[in-house]
Amino acid sequence: MVGDSIGTKLVSLGHKVMMGSRTAGNEKALAWTSRNGALASNGTFADAAAFGEIIFNCTSGHASLEALQLAGRENLQGKILVDVANPLDFSKGMPPSLSVCNTDSLGEVIQRQFTDVKVVKALNTLSCQLMVNPGLLKDSGNIFICGNDAAAKAEVESLLRTFGWEKIIDLGDITAARGTEQILPIWVRLMGKLGTPMFNFSIVQ
Amino acid sequence: MVGDSIGTKLVSLGHKVMMGSRTAGNEKALAWTSRNGALASNGTFADAAAFGEIIFNCTSGHASLEALQLAGRENLQGKILVDVANPLDFSKGMPPSLSVCNTDSLGEVIQRQFTDVKVVKALNTLSCQLMVNPGLLKDSGNIFICGNDAAAKAEVESLLRTFGWEKIIDLGDITAARGTEQILPIWVRLMGKLGTPMFNFSIVQ
Repeated sequence: MVGDSIGTKLVSLGHKVMMGSRTAGNEKALAWTSRNGALASNGTFADAAAFGEIIFNCTSGHASLEALQLAGRENLQGKILVDVANPLDFSKGMPPSLSVCNTDSLGEVIQRQFTDVKVVKALNTLSCQLMVNPGLLKDSGNIFICGNDAAAKAEVESLLRTFGWEKIIDLGDITAARGTEQILPIWVRLMGKLGTPMFNFSIVQ
Repeated sequence: MVGDSIGTKLVSLGHKVMMGSRTAGNEKALAWTSRNGALASNGTFADAAAFGEIIFNCTSGHASLEALQLAGRENLQGKILVDVANPLDFSKGMPPSLSVCNTDSLGEVIQRQFTDVKVVKALNTLSCQLMVNPGLLKDSGNIFICGNDAAAKAEVESLLRTFGWEKIIDLGDITAARGTEQILPIWVRLMGKLGTPMFNFSIVQ
């Protein structure tokens, strides 16, 4: 769902996008490709990683490391990886817990395991409909980015502005992913309370 | 600081308030009492717990359980305990980690250890200046409450409305404290980024 939303948005902005999957010919990837025309294509995680200049990790948090290993270190090397994933653990029932948190984060784990990749944590604090359509809310609220490479963050920030985002807060290095990932537990509670995922956090001063 | 702010606010609203400390005659408690006139008094944690109809836990998270044990089970029994504390652990340096999180929370630990007390987690997601003066922000934003006792939450919500709070979100039972306590890591990052604790979270739809 997240990859579909972001891929569709990127195509609508004129970017060539390849949707990666565990295996080539994935049914959902084929459907997405046929819906999105000539700029859209699909392949394995490795195909997509080799194809992309900027890679979006839109996998489930528990599957992210395996997906990135399948994508291949050599295909990712030197590239920007926008990490949208959250380490939600549903194995103990609802509400989900986090499989990594507090003194570490999924963003950091990925950065440590892929030291040649420029990990930028972004967009993980809201539903995928809103990630690509901030105008759906009366007040769009804020999104947060963090990562160790300033140029990579600037590039991602520029891209997110083309999505419609204006209020982007750079929280610093990738360790700030502890903060944005640990916002998920209250996000889940709020979704239950409000009865909708169509909300966001706005920082008011 | 938190107890001073909340105590001062309560006195300004006409409530009698006793500030509890580890030992009677605490210097800060005496200073607070002399600043706040006839409605203010001070004593031990046990004195304050016996005195109060509603108890505010404004201690540091790492000291909360000991403070509540000193307050005394018999003095707390059946009462509402507004838990404002956060389990911030500064022992490993900055930024702080949480001494309990993810599948548990300080609010839950307190509720489990003091089963006869009606724990309402509240006000732990913003600075103490704002806890008692939401009007200091152009948009006050939201505060969150949670707890197992509906009547206790309603009473706390009424009290918080007299502080000036309008947008109070009840997140459900005390396990929702996992959500509000785990918002602290991003709060700390935001304080560093914004250079001030004078901000809050607003849920926008």
